[in-house]
Amino acid sequence: MSLTMDLNSDLGESLGAWTMGDDASMLSIVSSANVACGFHAGDPAGILDTLKKAKANNVVVGAHVAYRDLVGFGRRNMDVAHADLVSDVIYQIGALQGLAAAAGTTVRYVKPHGALYNTIAQDRRQAAAVIEAMQAVGGQLALVVLAGSPLMQWARDAGLTVIAEAFADRGYTPQGTLVSRREPGAVLHDPEMVAQRMLQLVQQGTVQANDGSVVEVQADSICVHGDSPGAVAMAQAVREHLQAAGVQIRSFMDKAGA
Amino acid sequence: MSLTMDLNSDLGESLGAWTMGDDASMLSIVSSANVACGFHAGDPAGILDTLKKAKANNVVVGAHVAYRDLVGFGRRNMDVAHADLVSDVIYQIGALQGLAAAAGTTVRYVKPHGALYNTIAQDRRQAAAVIEAMQAVGGQLALVVLAGSPLMQWARDAGLTVIAEAFADRGYTPQGTLVSRREPGAVLHDPEMVAQRMLQLVQQGTVQANDGSVVEVQADSICVHGDSPGAVAMAQAVREHLQAAGVQIRSFMDKAGA
Amino acid sequence: MSLTMDLNSDLGESLGAWTMGDDASMLSIVSSANVACGFHAGDPAGILDTLKKAKANNVVVGAHVAYRDLVGFGRRNMDVAHADLVSDVIYQIGALQGLAAAAGTTVRYVKPHGALYNTIAQDRRQAAAVIEAMQAVGGQLALVVLAGSPLMQWARDAGLTVIAEAFADRGYTPQGTLVSRREPGAVLHDPEMVAQRMLQLVQQGTVQANDGSVVEVQADSICVHGDSPGAVAMAQAVREHLQAAGVQIRSFMDKAGA
Amino acid sequence: MSLTMDLNSDLGESLGAWTMGDDASMLSIVSSANVACGFHAGDPAGILDTLKKAKANNVVVGAHVAYRDLVGFGRRNMDVAHADLVSDVIYQIGALQGLAAAAGTTVRYVKPHGALYNTIAQDRRQAAAVIEAMQAVGGQLALVVLAGSPLMQWARDAGLTVIAEAFADRGYTPQGTLVSRREPGAVLHDPEMVAQRMLQLVQQGTVQANDGSVVEVQADSICVHGDSPGAVAMAQAVREHLQAAGVQIRSFMDKAGA
Repeated sequence: MSLTMDLNSDLGESLGAWTMGDDASMLSIVSSANVACGFHAGDPAGILDTLKKAKANNVVVGAHVAYRDLVGFGRRNMDVAHADLVSDVIYQIGALQGLAAAAGTTVRYVKPHGALYNTIAQDRRQAAAVIEAMQAVGGQLALVVLAGSPLMQWARDAGLTVIAEAFADRGYTPQGTLVSRREPGAVLHDPEMVAQRMLQLVQQGTVQANDGSVVEVQADSICVHGDSPGAVAMAQAVREHLQAAGVQIRSFMDKAGA
Repeated sequence: MSLTMDLNSDLGESLGAWTMGDDASMLSIVSSANVACGFHAGDPAGILDTLKKAKANNVVVGAHVAYRDLVGFGRRNMDVAHADLVSDVIYQIGALQGLAAAAGTTVRYVKPHGALYNTIAQDRRQAAAVIEAMQAVGGQLALVVLAGSPLMQWARDAGLTVIAEAFADRGYTPQGTLVSRREPGAVLHDPEMVAQRMLQLVQQGTVQANDGSVVEVQADSICVHGDSPGAVAMAQAVREHLQAAGVQIRSFMDKAGA
Repeated sequence: MSLTMDLNSDLGESLGAWTMGDDASMLSIVSSANVACGFHAGDPAGILDTLKKAKANNVVVGAHVAYRDLVGFGRRNMDVAHADLVSDVIYQIGALQGLAAAAGTTVRYVKPHGALYNTIAQDRRQAAAVIEAMQAVGGQLALVVLAGSPLMQWARDAGLTVIAEAFADRGYTPQGTLVSRREPGAVLHDPEMVAQRMLQLVQQGTVQANDGSVVEVQADSICVHGDSPGAVAMAQAVREHLQAAGVQIRSFMDKAGA
Repeated sequence: MSLTMDLNSDLGESLGAWTMGDDASMLSIVSSANVACGFHAGDPAGILDTLKKAKANNVVVGAHVAYRDLVGFGRRNMDVAHADLVSDVIYQIGALQGLAAAAGTTVRYVKPHGALYNTIAQDRRQAAAVIEAMQAVGGQLALVVLAGSPLMQWARDAGLTVIAEAFADRGYTPQGTLVSRREPGAVLHDPEMVAQRMLQLVQQGTVQANDGSVVEVQADSICVHGDSPGAVAMAQAVREHLQAAGVQIRSFMDKAGA
């Protein structure tokens, strides 16, 4: 039986006259599309267009929910009250579900974006809000979480399906956490090296940490970026290396038979 | 068999620290709540709160979709392109459906708000966008339209269930259209007189026009406002007069058995 | 020579169809108006209207700058990067200066709002951004700061005129800081008692702390609120008590002869 | 004495994580920069950055004021009430003046953007609002208007300095108006041909219309675009052709000695 791996990417992040990323290219590379929901990026017409392309490419769709912060692209920490965060997440999932229905597809998972992603990986209060929102919406949505973070257990305890995520272009510490963007080695730029790392991740469940040691990273999905021509090329390299080694690129949601 | 009439009102129109209207009072008066979807008013937590109260009061919920214009409260005409308007309406309906699911209720109809309401009553292009959005979302949503407007036929031709709407506090012309707000007699202020007019509307399908003539207005629902203490009192008067005359206040959607 | 005190209040906080506070009443009570700049509240037409009324009442105007967060009313902590915060503050001051010119008045000081106010009272990085913005704009703007906070010295070191602020309706700790809103005694509700406290503050430079001790609070301005009928009445009581004791209500900026 | 011509371009139109145009290149080509003010595009930090670059390039700065419509990029007609439009324009000019002061430069003129530009060229009511806003701000701001439009006279009657504008890449009708974007020949793509046209415009005050006839166009400034590599190349071609023919590229405001 062959190995499988999910590749996911952040898409639908254009806004009106402003374009970001190359959704068409990325949708031929990834198996899962984290689609912006309008709070950090994405206008409804652009989102719908991305959803239609995802459907045409048999790419599974998730809600890339975020803080309400267009100018900051959802990358700024915000101290949002529990009830507000619960409702903000439900609103975004619902909006994307409506557009997904119009595109003939369905929202299968939730991946928080940017500062919200990083915060809930560690912060129990905000994590609880996202989990509560997903339970309120219902429909067996899975949650994409940083592999190895405390959020994994919190989400499982709440009965959610958890998709542990690794990042293709990020360095790892010996503890299996991401190297901070303030430190050297945080972001990797060599497509060939990155692709080799991801093959090792899939085949052996390990990556080389920034001190040279080998650290275990159990991931169900690999995040690749598409916001520059170089990023698209790297994503393509990851896909090709995995496929050349016999790894099937396939949505975690399909794998789960969900 | 007794007469029935639907009373609807615009609710959920607070925004963060700003409150508007008295949703709690109005939800004990009306049978249908047109709930803001965040484009002209309403933040997700406030909307969810209104939806929960609607559920608790057995009030049917509709999506009060609007142009994206918080500062103008959706009251300013905007020349929105077809694809954008279709997607904007889908987005809003979907967002409200998500919050409604969390509140244990469902979105049953769509009532466009403000400038969008007035525009699509007459403008075939924008009307087509709203209709297309509703068809894309699916789920047998009904459309609330100005009684007697061209939109009624356009929506029926598209296969939508149409709810013809009359306005309790507005004057009518001999042609059965609303008196323009730029002219005298556009807005009525006497609760007793308004309640009597609405009883005549329900019992005889007519109202007295601003020239004294009697004009036919076939309405499935009466819009009452709740944005001031006087408005709430007027809505209450309408309800009481109708009930005293044996009219059952009941959602059009329930009546339709939909 | 008589004692003087400045009374300030947050005004111009309506937004389009949503009203907040009673600016007309408050402008007959206060000597300084902290006018919203559009980031946490205030639309340009409403702001201009408040500025015209401030001018008519000889009330000095300050820029009530905030995080860009309408739905959160600027009350949520946001991790805004230095360059962004500098520019956001300049933008808001400039916008208010433009509207003030149209109203025949001028912006004389800056009072950060909500979460920004609280954050920069203690956080050197964000404080430096606000100070840098004020220096970039020029024009001898004063800065309103929480009396006794570290920001006082930082602003003075940067050469800014500092206006130390006390809060009429807030409890104080024995250390001269505000009682946290999460604790009892944070907010005071008795207008008579509050007015007496403020008279003591003006005459003796002290207030009674929440443990009964007397603590020194050196304030150049007292903040009064106007967002409810009760708040307006309390502000009026403070003004009347001070005046009855011979205290002149007068802008700090006038006092400074600036 | 040599001929002079002003070249202007729309700049500062990035928004947070989204970039638009190549401001650095364009600021070496044009003599006037129409800088976004945050309503259709531009975040304060990005605007400030563009203003600093304009200052470094001795490029004169104008306020590119717009309807409040980020998602529509200010290109959608909006029926904004007079008092709102007046205040919106003042707010934007003031905000840009604040940032310009921080950049060591000043706002010298106003160029409305997109739908507002097109509307006020013909619509007396909205034109009056923009003019009133400029008068309220004061400071001898000039107004950039479509050459030959009714707005020219309205603005002159109000005492404003008027800068008549031609468009390098647009076709003209025999009446001297722009060919509608819905018709063939609306947009020109050949840099060489466009540059030749603009040289004729400068030297003879005429352009060839879309029916082959020669039509008079009296322009004080030529708008060139920079939102694509092709657009930058065209702008560069226009500049080089004009300079090769001895035309000095120079701000109209400098020319006016204002």
